[in-house]
Amino acid sequence: MDGIHLLGEWFDCPAESPAMIQSGALRSLCLAATQGAGLTAVGDKFHQFAPQGVTGMVLLAESHLAIHTWPESGFVSVDVYVCNFSADNTPKAQHLFDALRRAFQPARVSEHTIRRGGLEPVRKAA
Amino acid sequence: MDGIHLLGEWFDCPAESPAMIQSGALRSLCLAATQGAGLTAVGDKFHQFAPQGVTGMVLLAESHLAIHTWPESGFVSVDVYVCNFSADNTPKAQHLFDALRRAFQPARVSEHTIRRGGLEPVRKAA
Repeated sequence: MDGIHLLGEWFDCPAESPAMIQSGALRSLCLAATQGAGLTAVGDKFHQFAPQGVTGMVLLAESHLAIHTWPESGFVSVDVYVCNFSADNTPKAQHLFDALRRAFQPARVSEHTIRRGGLEPVRKAA
Repeated sequence: MDGIHLLGEWFDCPAESPAMIQSGALRSLCLAATQGAGLTAVGDKFHQFAPQGVTGMVLLAESHLAIHTWPESGFVSVDVYVCNFSADNTPKAQHLFDALRRAFQPARVSEHTIRRGGLEPVRKAA
């Protein structure tokens, strides 16, 4: 299944932003950004760590969004993965990714795009 | 946050295996494999598509597991991402990934390992 996976490591994000520290705020942000991108959430789960940090995922009809925050170091890790089953969802994935980046306001980023699930598997399974 | 991300595209998996087609079976497999690898689940969510296919995620204390099945094409996409906050969790991630591969029995695979969240961000944010 052809798809696109966007990976972000976002550094120096303001640590006090609600989405960095509260699971409810992060969930609201993720679901709103998913909807805003025209992607379809079919389930989600978020978890609040003690003393700090939030982790969460949104199951998409198109694949998934995953996000992890470390307020103590201003760091956010994000994955947006969409499959192109019935349409090219790449622009929607980028829209979602960009909306989240805007929300977290990182000063520095490391980002990669991976094309997944093409028709050319590289080796036979062991 | 330094971490390791294993990505798998597994082809020609037997389409009739319960974990390919039933969300409950996939959830049980994922939670057992997580525990077997010595990783810590803090939440999970699985979704059954109609007419077929399952998607799910396990939130880990160490980051996440995500998996999507397409029984109609014998295809499975999997992500295992662990951060090395207090220890090097790479062997545990590989253990989980290998256990899932054994369960799905792909004939062909495309797999990649990505090192994430290092100390060298590549550019300033726009």
